[in-house]
Amino acid sequence: MKKEIPYKIYLEEHEMPKQWYNVRADMKKKPAPILNPQTLKPITLEELSEIFCVELAKQELDDVNPYIDIPEEIRNFYKMYRPSPLVRAYCLEKKLGTPAHIYYKFEGNNTSGSHKLNSAIAQAYYAQKQNLKGVTTETGAGQWGTALSMACSYFDLDCQVYMVKCSYEQKPFRREVMRTYGASVTPSPSMTTDVGKKINAEFPGTNGSLGCAISEAVEAAAAQNGYRYVLGSVMSQVLLHQSVIGLEAKSALDKYGIKADIVIGCAGGGSNLGGLISPFAGEMLRGEADYKLIAVEPISCPSLTRGKYAYDFCDTGKVCPLQKMYTLGSGFMPTSSHAGGLRYHGMSSVVSEIYEQGLMEARSVRQTEVFQAAQEFARVEGILPAPESSHAIKVAIDEAIKCKETGESKNIVFGLTGTGYFDLYAYQKYNDGVMGDFVPTDEEIETSLSLLPNIDI
Amino acid sequence: MKKEIPYKIYLEEHEMPKQWYNVRADMKKKPAPILNPQTLKPITLEELSEIFCVELAKQELDDVNPYIDIPEEIRNFYKMYRPSPLVRAYCLEKKLGTPAHIYYKFEGNNTSGSHKLNSAIAQAYYAQKQNLKGVTTETGAGQWGTALSMACSYFDLDCQVYMVKCSYEQKPFRREVMRTYGASVTPSPSMTTDVGKKINAEFPGTNGSLGCAISEAVEAAAAQNGYRYVLGSVMSQVLLHQSVIGLEAKSALDKYGIKADIVIGCAGGGSNLGGLISPFAGEMLRGEADYKLIAVEPISCPSLTRGKYAYDFCDTGKVCPLQKMYTLGSGFMPTSSHAGGLRYHGMSSVVSEIYEQGLMEARSVRQTEVFQAAQEFARVEGILPAPESSHAIKVAIDEAIKCKETGESKNIVFGLTGTGYFDLYAYQKYNDGVMGDFVPTDEEIETSLSLLPNIDI
Repeated sequence: MKKEIPYKIYLEEHEMPKQWYNVRADMKKKPAPILNPQTLKPITLEELSEIFCVELAKQELDDVNPYIDIPEEIRNFYKMYRPSPLVRAYCLEKKLGTPAHIYYKFEGNNTSGSHKLNSAIAQAYYAQKQNLKGVTTETGAGQWGTALSMACSYFDLDCQVYMVKCSYEQKPFRREVMRTYGASVTPSPSMTTDVGKKINAEFPGTNGSLGCAISEAVEAAAAQNGYRYVLGSVMSQVLLHQSVIGLEAKSALDKYGIKADIVIGCAGGGSNLGGLISPFAGEMLRGEADYKLIAVEPISCPSLTRGKYAYDFCDTGKVCPLQKMYTLGSGFMPTSSHAGGLRYHGMSSVVSEIYEQGLMEARSVRQTEVFQAAQEFARVEGILPAPESSHAIKVAIDEAIKCKETGESKNIVFGLTGTGYFDLYAYQKYNDGVMGDFVPTDEEIETSLSLLPNIDI
Repeated sequence: MKKEIPYKIYLEEHEMPKQWYNVRADMKKKPAPILNPQTLKPITLEELSEIFCVELAKQELDDVNPYIDIPEEIRNFYKMYRPSPLVRAYCLEKKLGTPAHIYYKFEGNNTSGSHKLNSAIAQAYYAQKQNLKGVTTETGAGQWGTALSMACSYFDLDCQVYMVKCSYEQKPFRREVMRTYGASVTPSPSMTTDVGKKINAEFPGTNGSLGCAISEAVEAAAAQNGYRYVLGSVMSQVLLHQSVIGLEAKSALDKYGIKADIVIGCAGGGSNLGGLISPFAGEMLRGEADYKLIAVEPISCPSLTRGKYAYDFCDTGKVCPLQKMYTLGSGFMPTSSHAGGLRYHGMSSVVSEIYEQGLMEARSVRQTEVFQAAQEFARVEGILPAPESSHAIKVAIDEAIKCKETGESKNIVFGLTGTGYFDLYAYQKYNDGVMGDFVPTDEEIETSLSLLPNIDI
């Protein structure tokens, strides 16, 4: 007899994952190795450990071990805001009149407002274990910076955040959350680094960019004893930590005997998507099950659907290791959109390789239809979703409507990565009917792709 | 054998309350009857039904039935964001080095960001059952307006919110949440009501006040067929709905064999406090157990600690029924503070009577020490608390430190009513070290109290 499915499936604490899952271990064809930006050769553990903590560098390079123990201190922190619920969207189903069963894994119930905390706490933990004094990072909209400041506060680490100047000024509230958690937040470009001074001199009054903030954070880490630089997405270590999302989702489904048919995630750098789909992709790779996996990206920044699978720099400053990935080119400047977390030129090498192997499909959607889906969802399910997460909502609704047409009651699972409490300016634009859509021209994309480094190893 | 206590105690859905608890039924001496503002006589059901929905008017006047069924539709909505977790504050305990066990009932994990949704959904439900077209209300900071807009969206009711003009302009994000849920939000005083026009004419350029917004909302409800006015606190019906907080907390404690020693809530109009303490006060009234109940109010608006127990108007416009309550006088203007939800001149008649009978004590605290406690809490427990909720945190920490001194391992339970995501301006003031404290003078309070209506029935 099947158990009745509650509105929210919570695992018990003892059912929470004790190991992260490393999907690379189950891939016969592995993602291409990451390259040292100076030598353009596969980076060694020693070289990588100059940028990241040793343990994190090991995780970054490990494509062999399928399971990696989650240290107890991290598991205890996870218990403060995890397990996150797997929610059955009964009200959305009813509103749509669909026979599909819709589930979402909701990662927004913590003060960082998103899944970013899952990796931030792990990175802070290893930094503390290595007796570092602190870490540096960049943040755009502020989600990653917030998560990292929470994690550093917990482990008593200094946290230095370089925040893109226009966000620093336009999003003072995110900045204040970080300050409340004890982080120092510096608008970038600043006068505290050489690269910041240089950019300020060249472009007086510039609003800054993520590329510049990365460069400042890397320089600041290198200039201080006992500091390392940390990153919130794209890297394989981050996807490893984020596998906790997929593992919990899978356990919750298994607990009620539910077999997912479709698994959907929004795609920026790939951290939440990779984390969510990893255990499902793993079963596909091992030939145990089949799923329809869907990545959803903004039409304004379509790395999977219109990019090229090639080696590229992860940052515009070209100081981070290179990855082979679906990319629009590190110089690609997506036009303004309100899903700040999805405005990344590339895609995690793990997600890219999963896509390349045909295990996953990708779709791009317009932000106006994304906000329409967000509003529809909010009105019946209560939660005001982040613009990024709403990309997944849009496609989940599309798939549920298809089920209505065919009469199939498929199980649709999507990742609701976060809340939109700090994105109300975007909702205001939508509510006022003045939100636009931006689609890059073929010429823009070709020009950007023509500047890709020519590397084949 | 005692079960190990998890970080978060969640009830199963089938363990959630199916009835609200009406503490008045267990009181030998009942709260004094509420009065019709026109006749100054106890208001009748018929008269009250002109202001509120009939079912809500019945609940308002019912001091006999201890349990009232929660309709299934409301229970289903509750399942979307409830049960709320009872969290064991392991990290805060460790930080304080206290032998006390600290628990908090966290009501912030929904888009309204607070417990207000518990009553909003009930009031919207009864409005829909009565085939109303919509409801009107006022909102100050916007928490109640947000909760009501979510509830009305769920039940397809029109929702008209009069928002104090300075908040409308200074807190555009709360306004946008309400608009996203389909509510119409009008800055008050507006030109859409007679009272609004009058006030605009008398005080050109005024920033508005809660009293004025109430008057506009009441007038708007009366002027439209099929509309009623709804309120988010102070009324006994609201406390009844909020009893779900205390009932869940009690069940969660019972599930693990934990006996609370101290129960702490912040006190504004009394809705969350009354809801949290009701089941505990009920056991005290029935002679079944003893608890130390503590109400915490801001020193800037000290209705319990410095007010008078007397009949007073609930609103400055004097259009709502009068209650006998601890009050500073309906004309009392608390100096500016960042806990907008606690800037109310009076206190729910139920909470007032519980206090009068000596079942509960009250303390007032300064906002600077409240924000210090908030920051300390946020840094170890992760959650960024609302300024209102942080009043309870402050006293919970005080009590835990007392336990450290005496070596007692008491069980301290407090209500964490909401999150501070829309209160970052206040945190900024605190982070910048420019937050002040405001203590009303004896003269100010005496002057305000001298204007109380002279009623004794």
